[in-house]
This record gives sequence, C-alpha cells and structure tokens, in this order.
Amino acid sequence: MYGKEITVADREMVEERADQMLSEAADADVAFLVVGDPFGATTHTDLVVRAKNMGVEVKVIHNASVMNAIGVCGLQLYRYGETISIPFFTETWRPDSFYEKIQNSRRLGLHTLCLLDIRVKEPTLESLCRGKKVYEPARFMTVNTAISQLLEVEELHGGSAYGPDSLCMGVARLGSDDQKIVAGPMKKLLDVDFGPPLHCLIIVGETHPVEQEMLEFYMIK
Amino acid sequence: MYGKEITVADREMVEERADQMLSEAADADVAFLVVGDPFGATTHTDLVVRAKNMGVEVKVIHNASVMNAIGVCGLQLYRYGETISIPFFTETWRPDSFYEKIQNSRRLGLHTLCLLDIRVKEPTLESLCRGKKVYEPARFMTVNTAISQLLEVEELHGGSAYGPDSLCMGVARLGSDDQKIVAGPMKKLLDVDFGPPLHCLIIVGETHPVEQEMLEFYMIK
Repeated sequence: MYGKEITVADREMVEERADQMLSEAADADVAFLVVGDPFGATTHTDLVVRAKNMGVEVKVIHNASVMNAIGVCGLQLYRYGETISIPFFTETWRPDSFYEKIQNSRRLGLHTLCLLDIRVKEPTLESLCRGKKVYEPARFMTVNTAISQLLEVEELHGGSAYGPDSLCMGVARLGSDDQKIVAGPMKKLLDVDFGPPLHCLIIVGETHPVEQEMLEFYMIK
Repeated sequence: MYGKEITVADREMVEERADQMLSEAADADVAFLVVGDPFGATTHTDLVVRAKNMGVEVKVIHNASVMNAIGVCGLQLYRYGETISIPFFTETWRPDSFYEKIQNSRRLGLHTLCLLDIRVKEPTLESLCRGKKVYEPARFMTVNTAISQLLEVEELHGGSAYGPDSLCMGVARLGSDDQKIVAGPMKKLLDVDFGPPLHCLIIVGETHPVEQEMLEFYMIK
C-alpha cells in the first residue's frame, strides 16, 4: 500500500540504527527494506551519502511508490507540480508553507499530490520532559482532515489558490485490493468516509479529455 | 531499466491490439505487461477507460518507473516540477513547447526531469506513401543530443530559462547494474559518453544540503 514514502518511525529507526547498519556493511552485505521507493524523501539519501563517504558500495532495487502509483487515478504523472506534505495542525503549530506551492502549481494548471501526516511512535510531550519516552497512539490524517485544514489556510491567506468548489480526488489505501478513489469538489469530499489509512489527496489541475474520462468514473454522485 | 514510460512501438501495439485484449477479457482473465508503471502516460489510461466502459474489471499491479527511480540521483522527488519530453528534431519539425514548462519550473526552483525520445518501429515516410510499412532503424536520444537541442531552443527564445552553465544530471540505463550518472554544467555534459540507451536528463533546480552532497558524488571533474 502506497501513501507516504517515509514515516516518523522509519525516520527514527534510520537515524538511530544508521551507525550500526553502516559499520556492519564494512565487511558484510546489509539489506535495508523500505516501504515504497527508497528515495521518496531525503532520509534515505542521507544514508546513501554516509555510506558513500565510508566507501560502502550501495545497490538500490527500486519499487513502486505513491509518486507513481497515484497514476491509477487517471491524471497524467507528467502534469504534477511540486508534491506537498500536510502536517496535523495543533493549537499552537499550524504551518502552511504548502499554500504557496499549491498556488504556484494551480497557476500552471498542474495537479498537486498532497501527502498526509502520519504520526507513529511520537513521544508524548510529557514523557519527553520526564526523560522516559512514552508514545502517543498512532494517528493518520484522513482526506477529510486534510481538506478541512486546506480550507482553513485558504481562508487565512485569501489568495484563491483553491476553494470549496475545487475539484479533488481523495485516495485511500492506494495499491491495496480495497483501495478507494473518490473525485469531487472539496466541500463534498469533506463528508466522504474513506475508511482505514493511508489516505492521500490530489488537487486536480487542468485536465485533458482522457483524464476527464477517468475522473468521471470516480466522480461523487 | 527505466527511461521512458511508453515507447512508440508499445503505443502502436496497444492501439492495434486493444480491441482483441478487451474482447477476450469479456470472459477470461487477460494480463498486460508493461515496462515501468502502467500510468506514466495516458495510453494505458485510455485502455482502462475503454475496459471500464465495457464493464471489464481492471486490476493494476504497480511497479517502479523512471518517475520515482530517478530519485537515486539524490534530488528529492517532491521537488520536481512538470516532466517534459524532448522529441528528436528534424529539418522541418522542431517542436519546443517544453521550453515554457522548463522556464516555469526553473522560476520556482524545481528540478525538471526530461524524458528523451525513443523511436522504435517507426515506418519510413517512403513506405507510408507506398502503403507497405518498412521501419526505420531504432533510435534513442542521447543526453548529448538532448542538451544540444535544449541549448538551440534557449538561443531561439532567449528567455534565460537555462544556459550552457546550468547544472544538469545525465542518466543512462537507470536501474541497471551499469547505470551511469554524471552531474555538471550543460556545456560539459555535451561531451560525456553515456554509453548505450536509455538516457534521461535532469535540469537541476535549487538544492538543499543533502541534495548537494549527492550531487558532489556525481560531479564531473
């Protein structure tokens, strides 16, 4: 199932265990398996850089990833702009640097793939203060939360990058037998139950006829 | 080996044989194998649309594709703009609609993946006139030809989208054991022998430190 190239748990593992992996690789073959393609994000690039600096040969076996599996929605992969990540907003932390990126892609008529936050193995703030890690329950952002946050940010900026009527495609469990794809304006997708994670979202740009035909198959009634 | 999602021969095959595939799929399972991910280009999307219109269930098994395997170069996949295709120029046909796309991505600091022309099973003009197909020898665009055409187009438009000093990464046989990646300014990559096909090219946008480190490994001396 494709959704996000790298999870927090994965990142933490890479960071904590990288030294061990690299030192064992000095005189043995070490395999490191990841979900999706290893180079979706820079965490693994960093690992490769460190390996190369130590003279460790690295061989990569590529795999499907959300970055290309998303093509199943029928929007041409060529016509995507910058990929954005939407983090869970908190009371005090509501980063929205993705807004300008969406705006730029929309101006060019490009589609925007939005990867949604995954919070796995996040230590609680309280436990960090006490110095003994206790983890928060895992959370995965839904298409609904993503759209609700996007609309809040649009309201704040007022740049008309998108709005409640903007056409999107919500995608759940991409690549699984029970994957779910629903197209429709943001305001309608807000109420669609996409079921279990992982979810991701596409803000649809300008479409050509074949793309439009595929969209129709997934369009909410 | 990843290079281009769909070749002319592939497209021709899909177009000529689609009816047969779809009619056989009415009462049997039909498998259709492709190089890369099936949805890199719209040819296969069109096949899915036709299947759905006939009530044929379609199941997709995703695969690595140039669109994500290119991540091995160390540039973050998130930070690519629109993907462009560079066709072989002829005496009379020198299409350059890619120029504006590159310019748009460059303004945003994004990387541009350039897929290079593949001409396989192209009927000769002469044979088309005679009504009996004779095919041209297969041709695969090199990184060198791509850069030379890009520089010609820049000279024509004069928009300073890029130039001889613009940093690029030339890639040959991506995903193979003998893949070759060389980074450098366009003018230097013009003379690099990348060996057998398939080739592709990245015009590098703004980079962050981890990307920069990977670039250094591949930088031409």
